[in-house]
Amino acid sequence: MSRWYIDKGPQGDVAVSSRVRLARNFENIPFHSMMDEAQALEVENRVKKAFLEDSGKKYSFIDMQDIDPVNRQVLVEKHLISPNLAERRRGSAVILSDDESISVMVNEEDHLRIQCMFPGLQLEKAWELCDRIDVFLEERIDYAFDKELGYLTCCPTNIGTGMRASVMLHLPALIQTGYIKDILDACAKLGAAARGVYGEHSEAWGNMVQISNQITLGLSENEIIKGIDDMVSQIIGQERMIRKKLYDRDPLAFEDKVYRSLGILRNARVISFEESVRLLSDVKLGISMGIISDISDERINEVMLCIQPANLQKAAGIAINNEVRDAHRAEAIRKKLNSI
Amino acid sequence: MSRWYIDKGPQGDVAVSSRVRLARNFENIPFHSMMDEAQALEVENRVKKAFLEDSGKKYSFIDMQDIDPVNRQVLVEKHLISPNLAERRRGSAVILSDDESISVMVNEEDHLRIQCMFPGLQLEKAWELCDRIDVFLEERIDYAFDKELGYLTCCPTNIGTGMRASVMLHLPALIQTGYIKDILDACAKLGAAARGVYGEHSEAWGNMVQISNQITLGLSENEIIKGIDDMVSQIIGQERMIRKKLYDRDPLAFEDKVYRSLGILRNARVISFEESVRLLSDVKLGISMGIISDISDERINEVMLCIQPANLQKAAGIAINNEVRDAHRAEAIRKKLNSI
Repeated sequence: MSRWYIDKGPQGDVAVSSRVRLARNFENIPFHSMMDEAQALEVENRVKKAFLEDSGKKYSFIDMQDIDPVNRQVLVEKHLISPNLAERRRGSAVILSDDESISVMVNEEDHLRIQCMFPGLQLEKAWELCDRIDVFLEERIDYAFDKELGYLTCCPTNIGTGMRASVMLHLPALIQTGYIKDILDACAKLGAAARGVYGEHSEAWGNMVQISNQITLGLSENEIIKGIDDMVSQIIGQERMIRKKLYDRDPLAFEDKVYRSLGILRNARVISFEESVRLLSDVKLGISMGIISDISDERINEVMLCIQPANLQKAAGIAINNEVRDAHRAEAIRKKLNSI
Repeated sequence: MSRWYIDKGPQGDVAVSSRVRLARNFENIPFHSMMDEAQALEVENRVKKAFLEDSGKKYSFIDMQDIDPVNRQVLVEKHLISPNLAERRRGSAVILSDDESISVMVNEEDHLRIQCMFPGLQLEKAWELCDRIDVFLEERIDYAFDKELGYLTCCPTNIGTGMRASVMLHLPALIQTGYIKDILDACAKLGAAARGVYGEHSEAWGNMVQISNQITLGLSENEIIKGIDDMVSQIIGQERMIRKKLYDRDPLAFEDKVYRSLGILRNARVISFEESVRLLSDVKLGISMGIISDISDERINEVMLCIQPANLQKAAGIAINNEVRDAHRAEAIRKKLNSI
C-alpha cells in the first residue's frame, strides 16, 4: 500500500511532506503529568471506543506496552509517533489509520495528539482531515476548553488551537549557498520555527528542514495554515531559483556531484547514516533537476526509511550491532538502487 | 592487436611491465650533442637500412619531423618513446615493431636506444629480444666500443653495458602502509633506482613505481637482469603479503574502498588525471584480490592509456583544452568501464 512517507506529492521537488497535529485533553481527567495509571487507561479506552465508532476508516490500535523496542522505533522512524511516546508503556498507545495518514497518539504529552500527514505540500488537506477527526472525537469526548484561551494543553506553547502545522522541505541549494540563514531568520520573525529533521542540534542531515508554526494562540487554525503555507511556498520558490542558478553556473560540476553520490551509494560496502543521507540528498536533487531519470523520488524515500537503525534491523530479522550496521545499510541501499 | 602495455603478463597482479634498453652509438660519428644535421641523417638512414634487412619482423619508421605534437605525445604516453625524443625533429626517429614490443629510438640522447618491452615480469625475455636486435645491428653497424669500458655512451651513467633494465610495479599496499620507504632504501643500497611512473618529484600517482638498475658498468648484462629480477621478485612477494594482511584485517573496509572507487569512475562527469589513476589503482588492486571479477586488468590498462592528454585528444578527434579535458576523461572512463 502506498504511504505518505513514500509517495511524492504536490511541489514534491522541494516539499517532502506536510503534517498538522492538534493537541487535545479530556476535561475531567488530570493532565498527563498529574494523572494515575487508572486515569491513563480510562483515556486510552475512551479514545479507542470512540474510534471503533468510525465506520469510515480502518484503524490499528497499538498499545505501547505490547510492542518491542524495535517496532516502537520503526514507528518513530516513519514519523508516525514521537520519540517521547516510544518511551511510554502501559496506558499509552497510538491509533493508526490503514494508510498511516492518520496517527493519534494517546497519553503522550497531552491526552491526545491527532496527526494527519500527506506527501508534498498539502497542509490544507492535512488540516481538513485533522479537523474532521477532531469534530468526530469532540462529539464523543469532552475536551478541556477555555472560552478565553481555547484548547488547554500540558505545555503553554500549545495552548489555544493546540495546532502545529509543519512541512518537511529538502533545501540543498539554500543550505549549500548559505542563503538558508537569512530565510530562517525571516521565518523566526514571522513566528515559524525551523529545525533539521535528521542530525543533532542545528545540523540538517540530508538538507531536510522542517518548518512549523510557533504561535498557537490568537490566530485561527486557517490563519496558521495559511501563514505556514505562504511561507513554505516562498521558500520553495527560492530553493528552485537557487538550484537553477547553481546548475546554470556549471552544469557539468552539478551533474558530476549528483552522479558521484549515486555511484558511491550503488557501490559502497560500508556506509554511515550521516553519509547516506548526504549522498541521497544529492541524488534527490539530481532527480528533481531531471539529471537522473531512472530512479524515482519514491524509491529515494524508501531508501531514506530503510537505512534507519530500526527499519534496518527489522528487515534483517536479527539484532544488528553497531559494527555491522553500516554494512547492512550499504547492502540495503545497493539492493534498492541497483534494482530499478 | 594485443600490446604489451595492455596485456597482463606473468606476476601481473603486481608487475605491470618489464623493459630492457641498450644505449648504443656509431663508432665514426660524433655523439649526438656534437654532431651536425648531416651526421644525424646518416645515422638515421643507416639504422633504417639495417632494419629493412630484418625479414623476421615488420617495422614502422616514424620520423619525428613527420608527426604532429599530439601523435608524438601519444607515443610518449604509450612509453614507446621518451619525452626527450618527442622534442626532437629532423634526424630523430623511432622504429617500432608491429606489436610495439620493440622500439628503437634514433638520435635521442645516444645514436641508438634499443628498447624491448613485455607485460608483467619478463626481464629475461626482454633482454633476449634486445640482445638479438643488438647482435643483428652490430653485424651492420660499427658501435663505439672500448675494450676496458665496453659500449660508450653520451652520459657516463650508461657506459659499459649501456643497459637499463626496469620493471613497472603496482604497489598500493606497500605505499599505503609506508613500508615502501624501507624497500626503496634497500633497493638504493643494492644499486637500483625507483621512481614514480606518473606524477612529479617523489610522487607515485596510481601507486606505480619503476625499479631499474643504476649501475651499467662492471657487471654483465645477465648479472644486471638477474639482480633486478631478484629484487623485484622480493618486492612482489612483500606487496602480496601486505595486501593480504590489509584485506584480512578488515575485508569489508577493503572491499568498500575498492567499490567506492569503481562507483566514482563509473559515474563521474568531471575527473582529473590524478584522481583517475588513484581510483584506478584501487580497482586494479580489487581485481588482483578477486573482489572485482567483471573487469579485466587489460581493461584497466586500456583506461590508464586512454585518459592521458594526447590519447584523449586523439580519441576525441578535436583539440581539447584544459577546461573540457576532465569532462572528456570522465566520459572515456565511463565508456570503458560500463561496457564490459
